[in-house]
Amino acid sequence: MVLASGLGGAFPVLANSFPAKVPVPADNPMTPQKVALGKQLYFDPRLSLSGDFSCDTCHRVMGNGSDGLPLSFGVMGRVDVPRHTPTVYNAAFNTVQFWDGRAKSLEDQAKGPLMNPVEMGMPNAKAIVDRLEQIPGYRKEFGLVFGQKDSISLEHVVQAIATYERTLITPDSPYDRYMAGDKKAMNTAAVAGMHDLHTMGCAACHAGMMFDNPGTKMGTGFFQKFPLQAHNQECVAYVHKYDLDKDPGRFNVTKNPADEHDFKVPSLRNVALRAPYFHNGSVASLPTAVRIMAACQLGKSLSDKQVHDIVAFLGDLTGKFPKETMPRLPQTPGKAIMMQVAKLETASEALNNPK
Amino acid sequence: MVLASGLGGAFPVLANSFPAKVPVPADNPMTPQKVALGKQLYFDPRLSLSGDFSCDTCHRVMGNGSDGLPLSFGVMGRVDVPRHTPTVYNAAFNTVQFWDGRAKSLEDQAKGPLMNPVEMGMPNAKAIVDRLEQIPGYRKEFGLVFGQKDSISLEHVVQAIATYERTLITPDSPYDRYMAGDKKAMNTAAVAGMHDLHTMGCAACHAGMMFDNPGTKMGTGFFQKFPLQAHNQECVAYVHKYDLDKDPGRFNVTKNPADEHDFKVPSLRNVALRAPYFHNGSVASLPTAVRIMAACQLGKSLSDKQVHDIVAFLGDLTGKFPKETMPRLPQTPGKAIMMQVAKLETASEALNNPK
Repeated sequence: MVLASGLGGAFPVLANSFPAKVPVPADNPMTPQKVALGKQLYFDPRLSLSGDFSCDTCHRVMGNGSDGLPLSFGVMGRVDVPRHTPTVYNAAFNTVQFWDGRAKSLEDQAKGPLMNPVEMGMPNAKAIVDRLEQIPGYRKEFGLVFGQKDSISLEHVVQAIATYERTLITPDSPYDRYMAGDKKAMNTAAVAGMHDLHTMGCAACHAGMMFDNPGTKMGTGFFQKFPLQAHNQECVAYVHKYDLDKDPGRFNVTKNPADEHDFKVPSLRNVALRAPYFHNGSVASLPTAVRIMAACQLGKSLSDKQVHDIVAFLGDLTGKFPKETMPRLPQTPGKAIMMQVAKLETASEALNNPK
Repeated sequence: MVLASGLGGAFPVLANSFPAKVPVPADNPMTPQKVALGKQLYFDPRLSLSGDFSCDTCHRVMGNGSDGLPLSFGVMGRVDVPRHTPTVYNAAFNTVQFWDGRAKSLEDQAKGPLMNPVEMGMPNAKAIVDRLEQIPGYRKEFGLVFGQKDSISLEHVVQAIATYERTLITPDSPYDRYMAGDKKAMNTAAVAGMHDLHTMGCAACHAGMMFDNPGTKMGTGFFQKFPLQAHNQECVAYVHKYDLDKDPGRFNVTKNPADEHDFKVPSLRNVALRAPYFHNGSVASLPTAVRIMAACQLGKSLSDKQVHDIVAFLGDLTGKFPKETMPRLPQTPGKAIMMQVAKLETASEALNNPK
């Protein structure tokens, strides 16, 4: 089904449903055992400096895959997390990870928060491995998944976590059912909104099966400047109100002035559940976010009907979340707990006062 | 089966296996819908001031029901939580709750951390109700569980959480199988340790099906002074090393000098998984905890064999943990998120600078 039109016909075709398979890197094949280990690690607060902060603390699997806060708190109450937490759901389909695309894969992404002093705060890879080596259950499970000897490494930790994350996908939205032939799956407003999305130019960026890139390859990333139409009158007001021009975005990664204020285009899947919006989590409502996108990216002002229709369509991009069982986490022996606590103060001090 | 002996025959009989039913208060009957709602609330970080801290943050259902830390961190990095977090597993069988027994039921207990400034930090009951009222999914679910109109109240919140907690029980330990007739379920050392537990006097307090009280009624509580044999030479050294005499215990609740250093006797179920030990979480290893109990409560010094046998027995008190499915948490609309965040700074300031 080809819906592309408008904007000189230059933007790509809307792919027609949720991907049949999740992309899996050749060097990290999925196995049920690796998924199970990755799930344990994902929910394990011992992967943080304080021992009470897991991947799930910010990327809530039981919720929308983020924590619903504009900006998350970091380990031990840190309040300097700079950007809104993206959802883990469907992150497996992102061509790059983080708002500024600084990781090429889920594996690379997972290393970031683990060792970021304002997130999980582990000082280095060795500290992570040391922590897990203290837990006999993990020594055994890493051995079974990755080989029998010395299997606990940062690479294996992030491979397991990424493997679990590849199961966190949400197929079967009303839109997918509509595209599969069930014309009752979306109402008239949503269908009108879907057409608006294309005729107005949103799909220049929000294209493809995940509505986040026009055919970009995994690991490459699709970026866009935000705000792009910074001189549009309506946009100027939004930028001022929501503080939208403060973050240098991808420039921080490349140091190329052309990348200033460039961000990875986020997927529109489940966007109706993902308030608050944008890299700084500053915008509460989806209708406002849609108006901001139109003004600041397309230089267009939307009618109330257009906003209503587009929001109706975006609501129909909410998929079905997987039914998850809880992992059981292996036990830390008492002695190892006390060693961790003794190190905590030193490590915390070092992180807060880097040399 | 009667094992009582020693200590003048004055201490009670060991009951013979894990309770067949969990005690349920007449005014809070269990229903599957209430369990499901309680599970959502238990895992919901929006019940904390910061929105990132749930019951489960300290009482980890995926682990041993505590967080394995000597002392937990509170909301927003608070480091002044005064006592070690007790496990939620089998808490349904506790005759009273908290180390100092200040709550008579799971329902009463749940109110404590929610509104404790150093734990979840909600300023008052109204703030909790307001937060949940913003979430349409909860308005609907509370209505279905508790009645159709204005069903969100602090009482209903804690009733639902307590109802879920009554499902977090761990039957079928090797000891229970042994007592049910499977004489191979415990080895010789464990059987010897079981007899030691009785002949030496441990069971004066660690009695009953949960090994935490000699027949005390629900809501009454069974307390013991710790250290009880404070002048025993071996105990003096432990008290000094592990800082065991600083906490006034139940005195803080009753203001009765006779209750100074009194603590609720904890269950021995799953104790092998529950390091670190005691009200201040100061002792890493179970063998050391056993020696401290013998010296400080019974005035006795144990042989290495006695410690080995008792630890073997305690290991056989580890039951089977339930297989849990994850709840799905209902969505907060964006506007409500922003209201919460705007209130956060004010509330946080008020909590940290009480009038």
